[in-house]
Amino acid sequence: MPHIIVRGIKAEQMCEISTALVDELAAICDCGTDNFMIECLQTTSVFAGKIVETYPFIEVAWFERGLETRDLFAKALAKHVLSLGVKEVEIAFKTYREDSYYVNGERCFDV
Amino acid sequence: MPHIIVRGIKAEQMCEISTALVDELAAICDCGTDNFMIECLQTTSVFAGKIVETYPFIEVAWFERGLETRDLFAKALAKHVLSLGVKEVEIAFKTYREDSYYVNGERCFDV
Amino acid sequence: MPHIIVRGIKAEQMCEISTALVDELAAICDCGTDNFMIECLQTTSVFAGKIVETYPFIEVAWFERGLETRDLFAKALAKHVLSLGVKEVEIAFKTYREDSYYVNGERCFDV
Repeated sequence: MPHIIVRGIKAEQMCEISTALVDELAAICDCGTDNFMIECLQTTSVFAGKIVETYPFIEVAWFERGLETRDLFAKALAKHVLSLGVKEVEIAFKTYREDSYYVNGERCFDV
Repeated sequence: MPHIIVRGIKAEQMCEISTALVDELAAICDCGTDNFMIECLQTTSVFAGKIVETYPFIEVAWFERGLETRDLFAKALAKHVLSLGVKEVEIAFKTYREDSYYVNGERCFDV
Repeated sequence: MPHIIVRGIKAEQMCEISTALVDELAAICDCGTDNFMIECLQTTSVFAGKIVETYPFIEVAWFERGLETRDLFAKALAKHVLSLGVKEVEIAFKTYREDSYYVNGERCFDV
């Protein structure tokens, strides 16, 4: 965590920015870079009767870290993505509950 | 938004219904048709030791619009999907928080 | 429901454990085995400028069943996955609201 789930941007493009992006996000989150996953999801988009290019959209799955960190995270993520020449990107955060997250079957956090 | 994430139904099938579907959903949500994304996700389903066809399932990601709109949205979406000859479809809504949604790094909504 | 959405583990591997896994999970949830979906999602993961193997991660989408059931579910799921020789697996639960779930356009639960 955080997981950065990417639609509409190629994995090869994400490779270009991944090191600098994760360094910056790790500093914002005050955690190690190896906590991050960037995963590109292949989807087939449909609009007005035709298959179209997928709109650049990123869902960040993480534990809630508050507004200030979220704003900084979104700004940094968008900055790196837009630097690729992507015209627009939308980002939504979804939160996992800390008492609903397990490593090797063991709950990570007490309730 | 809304994002209509489809599993177990082919993109080509979604193409057939996409225009009438999005017109109807835009009327229900009182927003423009260009706010909608329909994206088909390829998954490989497993049951009882074998790879099987994926069950038709749609996750709608949106901002909460209340029960009445949600009921109408689900009914319209199911009607169009079932018109394709799909036998059954389940639909779940997940909500993004408005203070957790960003366009080009800028938060869309004040908190 | 529950939906078991798998990243970083092959469908062929999930086939090997699927019958015993679903039998055990159905007993924990006190529901029929045909309520379960196991779906493998293909993602392309990026780290440090390169495409890398996807980390084994499972998202369980279900209705909230409480801590005790969740702990047992995660433990059983991890046990079966680790029996495949997978070294580590993380599991997160996400809940659908019962008033936001529809079968063939009909809401499943009263509000």
